[in-house]
Amino acid sequence: MSDRVYKKVELVGTSKASIEDAIQNALTTADQTLDHLDWFEVSEIRGHISDGRVAHYQVVMKVGFRLDR
Amino acid sequence: MSDRVYKKVELVGTSKASIEDAIQNALTTADQTLDHLDWFEVSEIRGHISDGRVAHYQVVMKVGFRLDR
Amino acid sequence: MSDRVYKKVELVGTSKASIEDAIQNALTTADQTLDHLDWFEVSEIRGHISDGRVAHYQVVMKVGFRLDR
Amino acid sequence: MSDRVYKKVELVGTSKASIEDAIQNALTTADQTLDHLDWFEVSEIRGHISDGRVAHYQVVMKVGFRLDR
Amino acid sequence: MSDRVYKKVELVGTSKASIEDAIQNALTTADQTLDHLDWFEVSEIRGHISDGRVAHYQVVMKVGFRLDR
Amino acid sequence: MSDRVYKKVELVGTSKASIEDAIQNALTTADQTLDHLDWFEVSEIRGHISDGRVAHYQVVMKVGFRLDR
Amino acid sequence: MSDRVYKKVELVGTSKASIEDAIQNALTTADQTLDHLDWFEVSEIRGHISDGRVAHYQVVMKVGFRLDR
Amino acid sequence: MSDRVYKKVELVGTSKASIEDAIQNALTTADQTLDHLDWFEVSEIRGHISDGRVAHYQVVMKVGFRLDR
Amino acid sequence: MSDRVYKKVELVGTSKASIEDAIQNALTTADQTLDHLDWFEVSEIRGHISDGRVAHYQVVMKVGFRLDR
Amino acid sequence: MSDRVYKKVELVGTSKASIEDAIQNALTTADQTLDHLDWFEVSEIRGHISDGRVAHYQVVMKVGFRLDR
Amino acid sequence: MSDRVYKKVELVGTSKASIEDAIQNALTTADQTLDHLDWFEVSEIRGHISDGRVAHYQVVMKVGFRLDR
Amino acid sequence: MSDRVYKKVELVGTSKASIEDAIQNALTTADQTLDHLDWFEVSEIRGHISDGRVAHYQVVMKVGFRLDR
Repeated sequence: MSDRVYKKVELVGTSKASIEDAIQNALTTADQTLDHLDWFEVSEIRGHISDGRVAHYQVVMKVGFRLDR
Repeated sequence: MSDRVYKKVELVGTSKASIEDAIQNALTTADQTLDHLDWFEVSEIRGHISDGRVAHYQVVMKVGFRLDR
Repeated sequence: MSDRVYKKVELVGTSKASIEDAIQNALTTADQTLDHLDWFEVSEIRGHISDGRVAHYQVVMKVGFRLDR
Repeated sequence: MSDRVYKKVELVGTSKASIEDAIQNALTTADQTLDHLDWFEVSEIRGHISDGRVAHYQVVMKVGFRLDR
Repeated sequence: MSDRVYKKVELVGTSKASIEDAIQNALTTADQTLDHLDWFEVSEIRGHISDGRVAHYQVVMKVGFRLDR
Repeated sequence: MSDRVYKKVELVGTSKASIEDAIQNALTTADQTLDHLDWFEVSEIRGHISDGRVAHYQVVMKVGFRLDR
Repeated sequence: MSDRVYKKVELVGTSKASIEDAIQNALTTADQTLDHLDWFEVSEIRGHISDGRVAHYQVVMKVGFRLDR
Repeated sequence: MSDRVYKKVELVGTSKASIEDAIQNALTTADQTLDHLDWFEVSEIRGHISDGRVAHYQVVMKVGFRLDR
Repeated sequence: MSDRVYKKVELVGTSKASIEDAIQNALTTADQTLDHLDWFEVSEIRGHISDGRVAHYQVVMKVGFRLDR
Repeated sequence: MSDRVYKKVELVGTSKASIEDAIQNALTTADQTLDHLDWFEVSEIRGHISDGRVAHYQVVMKVGFRLDR
Repeated sequence: MSDRVYKKVELVGTSKASIEDAIQNALTTADQTLDHLDWFEVSEIRGHISDGRVAHYQVVMKVGFRLDR
Repeated sequence: MSDRVYKKVELVGTSKASIEDAIQNALTTADQTLDHLDWFEVSEIRGHISDGRVAHYQVVMKVGFRLDR
């Protein structure tokens, strides 16, 4: 088996519900166009505020997937 | 419309329940004295431990709001 | 009372359920062998992906505890 | 003369024109309410895009000023 | 309205004229192949020197855009 | 007891004598206008030089205090 | 000649043999689909362990290439 | 002589007196259970405040020591 | 199968021969006292110089291993 | 052709006019005593404030040049 | 008066006595060969250990000075 | 014996062969003009690509040496 190569793309998932839900939203979108999704790394947790409450979470994350060689 | 200016303050929200709840607690407090709260950025997630369990989460975050000019 | 000294160890908690649960799993394990657990600091949030969904969260964290002198 | 103490606040200046103009806009606003403004440190340069062009620059910066003691 | 997902790509714009021009050059190129360009974040400002003068500025930046879901 | 919220402000203490004295000078000033000072975090140690000797130390630090809710 | 624009992608090359070989493996894969590969920057060196020995090196790197305009 | 291997542990020394004393307190504790202590690296200087004065310094540091092979 | 927990320890491997050899030396030592070694992350590459040549490489690295629960 | 070696020096250019002018001022000074100036990397953008306006920009930058071997 | 240009050099001062003394030792040495020493910035505090006690402090610092133009 | 003072200079070694060879090339050049070379610290590993292969490695590193006092 030859040595594997992976690529990382940087996505921002958002959610009104929770940090975990924002992560999953980004993965669901990535899964529509990328194969072999393997891992993710959160790099920033942010969000917008409306009327003194969290309007939505924004999770900046890298998603790693194996490239076909 | 003139160019906007924003200020960021650094807060630490705490909660026994969850990271999201700690974020909201900080926003609720900020909202009592600051207008135009716009966004937040989490910079640290920490917490205290009691009897081997999370006693409370501490979320260090910056909160951005628009200044009146 | 003499001046206290603390030690920090680096753990990675994992969970299928949530970030908070991954944190607690690491603390539960640390509590089995370490006394005086005092605080934790999250340094990375990562995870593995399976079939386009979060398979498990991995939370890299430092756990601080007081040393007996 | 006693030892001086300074405070730093974090502002975000914006401008449609240039990075330098965004910096000055933040300083002009700060100067309305703070005395003894002394120095600034740029920490981020960002901006919004509209129709493929820079809509406005956002310069995140710390502004230092001397406190009266 | 469903939760939005964004992608960030990393570009290096160059210009003989100014930092702002280097930023715009990267955006102009990105705009040819990407829709919904939304924001940019400068991560490095560099450049080449020729005969003791700036030959061109190189601005490393991330460009964020909304993904269709 | 409700969940506590803290604020951090960034100060620069100076002293001709020592790093510890510069820290205390910033705290003494902060204590004049802020209640519930709780902890500090040093982020930079700098200083000015005069005639080849330290003229004064400058300690950049964050000071955390509990907010009344 | 107009001002050039470059793009950086993030890859992870792996190799059982050496760090240099892991770098080359990532470049060989990138070269199959990208033109004008110009430079790389290593951001992390990691690896997996099997039976107390390095099973393979993982080199996280950014690869820069010129975009056609 | 075979190639040496070292380990680093992370400690937090505290002291009411000074930063140097907090460092020494951590080393004194480490020396009770670890052999071949060789070097230390300060990573954070923090502290607690009581009545507007430094109650104690907390110095987070890594301590390196040679492992027997 | 319950959720796994991992620990990371920080080691410094040294070698006169190469960076890869310094990494392996640290792993070989770790393997004598730790079970389930799983991955490593290089955090610093340094070394000593003697007579204008590399006397030995020092690779600071974290080694992760699974804890029995 | 033998393998080239470069050196980087750290300079702070200042200017009342603009960031780009501060960069050029540093390069002009460096060019008086150093040969083969090749590239620069901006590491900080700061400045002094006078009467609520930018008195001068300070650009901290590294300047790279080839060494004769 | 033309715009000033400064240079920063990186030194490591050592002292058996204190952190402040290590800083001063580096400045005293720098002052022997450099004119117009202006400011310093501490980037690391480290040290060597002998018999469980601090053998000497090592303070890594940048020293800034004005260049004649 | 008086307290020692060290200086660090930043070099970029290059090599077509390997990372280790690039490090040695920088040291060999430094050794021609500097006495008492003591240690090095790698801060970046980069390189240029030609025809899909590593054309040369570029290792950015700091080299520390003792100053005569």
